[in-house]
Amino acid sequence: MVTQSSVEKFLDDLASGHPTPGGGSAAAIMGAMGAALVSMVCNVTIGKKGYEGVEAEMRAVRDESERVRRRLTAMVAEDIAAFDSFMSAYKLPKATEDDKARRAAAIQAGLRRATETPLDCARACAEVIALSRRASEQGYLNVISDGGVGVLAGFTGLRSAALNVYINAPSLQDREFAQQALAEVHELLEAGGRRSEAVYALVRGKLG
Amino acid sequence: MVTQSSVEKFLDDLASGHPTPGGGSAAAIMGAMGAALVSMVCNVTIGKKGYEGVEAEMRAVRDESERVRRRLTAMVAEDIAAFDSFMSAYKLPKATEDDKARRAAAIQAGLRRATETPLDCARACAEVIALSRRASEQGYLNVISDGGVGVLAGFTGLRSAALNVYINAPSLQDREFAQQALAEVHELLEAGGRRSEAVYALVRGKLG
Repeated sequence: MVTQSSVEKFLDDLASGHPTPGGGSAAAIMGAMGAALVSMVCNVTIGKKGYEGVEAEMRAVRDESERVRRRLTAMVAEDIAAFDSFMSAYKLPKATEDDKARRAAAIQAGLRRATETPLDCARACAEVIALSRRASEQGYLNVISDGGVGVLAGFTGLRSAALNVYINAPSLQDREFAQQALAEVHELLEAGGRRSEAVYALVRGKLG
Repeated sequence: MVTQSSVEKFLDDLASGHPTPGGGSAAAIMGAMGAALVSMVCNVTIGKKGYEGVEAEMRAVRDESERVRRRLTAMVAEDIAAFDSFMSAYKLPKATEDDKARRAAAIQAGLRRATETPLDCARACAEVIALSRRASEQGYLNVISDGGVGVLAGFTGLRSAALNVYINAPSLQDREFAQQALAEVHELLEAGGRRSEAVYALVRGKLG
């Protein structure tokens, strides 16, 4: 599991000429960092004097952000597996008509997975943005900039995942699925942009 | 060194109620991921058929992006050290007038370091954005989305670092330094926003 290697090793692998891990894995890590920072704001706030009234809300947000964080961390490996299965489909034999048909079907299945995985990542990042709003509205003032970094990381994870939908969806033969995926990612981007800028402005306002 | 622990352990530490690592470390990691993705685009392009004409440029960009990546990776530990020295200043004794003066001076020195460190991070992230433009303009088309994720990660690292300048600079007694830091980060943000959106648009255009 790539997420069990060190941060430095992960960065080395990202920088290498090997196609995985690449932008899709970086997207999932950014989303997971966003979720982790939302959890941090909640964890610092829970038990803080003067914040008793928001403790139940902070616990509820943290339970959600930890669930989303686990999901996004697992997506790093899923992104690599999706890309690898897509690439190995290209290497299938294409000598006979049967070969060609099998290869084309495997490529399409790989492409579908390489579209669904970043779409899932984009959805999880949209959850991070929604959670960061709740954490930044009510969390302990001294860690509010961490909530601000959390929302930025979440939205950037979303935009990054969207790029992987954009690169793969156009080659899908199942045009209905491709159009649905593109429409959903467009909507997630649009709402995510609006919502994350509102949270960022809220945090900036609190910083004075 | 926190960057020698696993990605999962880093995310756990980020999520915990302990103040470090926090948003400043996440900012440096995002910048480092951006630099790594620029290097990846260069590494994939170097030696690729049809890209002989840009090989020298890709090597030059990669040398720079690897230098910036090393710098940003080291900043994770620097950010933690800066925050910790700032926090320990608050714990100094304040019984006598001498104590109070020493404590106040230590807090100001800590604040200055906690402003300089994210400012340095913001400058390095601005370099990532400039390098991502060169990689995305001339890099191998099939990894261009990775260049797009790289520029988004770089700009988000910059915005995240800026939040840490905003939270610390207002409490600095050295108003001249504080104003300089705020003016520089404002300029970096403004130019970084413009430049990164231009690179993102370039990448989106190439994805079709």
